Amino acid sequence: MLILGIDPGSWHAGFGVVEQHGSTLRAIEHGRISCRRGATLPERLAHLSLELGALLARTKPDAAAVEAPFHGRNTRSLIVLAEARGALLATLATGGVSTREYSPAEVKSAVTGNGRAEKTQVSRMVRLLLALPSAALSNDTTDALAVAICCAQRWKFELRVGGRQA
Amino acid sequence: MLILGIDPGSWHAGFGVVEQHGSTLRAIEHGRISCRRGATLPERLAHLSLELGALLARTKPDAAAVEAPFHGRNTRSLIVLAEARGALLATLATGGVSTREYSPAEVKSAVTGNGRAEKTQVSRMVRLLLALPSAALSNDTTDALAVAICCAQRWKFELRVGGRQA
Repeated sequence: MLILGIDPGSWHAGFGVVEQHGSTLRAIEHGRISCRRGATLPERLAHLSLELGALLARTKPDAAAVEAPFHGRNTRSLIVLAEARGALLATLATGGVSTREYSPAEVKSAVTGNGRAEKTQVSRMVRLLLALPSAALSNDTTDALAVAICCAQRWKFELRVGGRQA
Repeated sequence: MLILGIDPGSWHAGFGVVEQHGSTLRAIEHGRISCRRGATLPERLAHLSLELGALLARTKPDAAAVEAPFHGRNTRSLIVLAEARGALLATLATGGVSTREYSPAEVKSAVTGNGRAEKTQVSRMVRLLLALPSAALSNDTTDALAVAICCAQRWKFELRVGGRQA
């Protein structure tokens, strides 16, 4: 079972592909898609979509997971983030990958046991659960891996109760 | 000069292709892309993106225009609308079509001379300017044609002052 976690953004999108094998989790590939400086919004959305399409073709995940939009931001950044999410969700569905959505609290709870955990604690637990070296991982990469871990943990439960889709 | 106007939405997206020839405007093709009932958000975004891609391939517009997001809505509908915009903007840029963005007031002003015009007045002027029969056009189709007309009118001026891109 291969799960792709994505942390959307309109300049950088983090991604992490996690393999679940029984109770074992393993990071297969992780990183971030970055857009070139000075690119317009449509150019960035097209670049994110294109790079995600290549990632899907290469890794062939069984499912994808993203964090639900967080409402506490200012309206302008909320809109741009939603535009990036939209381009990425369209690409996932075009690639035939079913996508699940989890709230920030669900992700934190799945990774640390505490829905209100600090970012540094989430990042530490992601490295621990996936046995990743402590080398610098960008925040969007650990966030993407965290949502993939959340999806992996919830998978069987969600199948049993009928699943929720973004 | 062919301009494609789009009125984004996550269930229906209006579109209108307008040809500008000197001071003459002509509607080449217009309508709406609709998603099937019960489709998930990612499925709808993928459908909108696919259908828009087919429209670009068929009509080959020189530029596209969309309305800037309107901030007065509730947050949930703002996010879903932005997700649809994101999927459509990515598709336009992937298709190599440069996209311009206009505020609702700019569009109304271009079509009626009044930035605070009523919807019915905008719709009436769109039919008049494009010599369209009074047969029922959906609101999202007339909105898409209105933004295409706005883009056509602003084109030369924007080229002169250096253009604005979404």
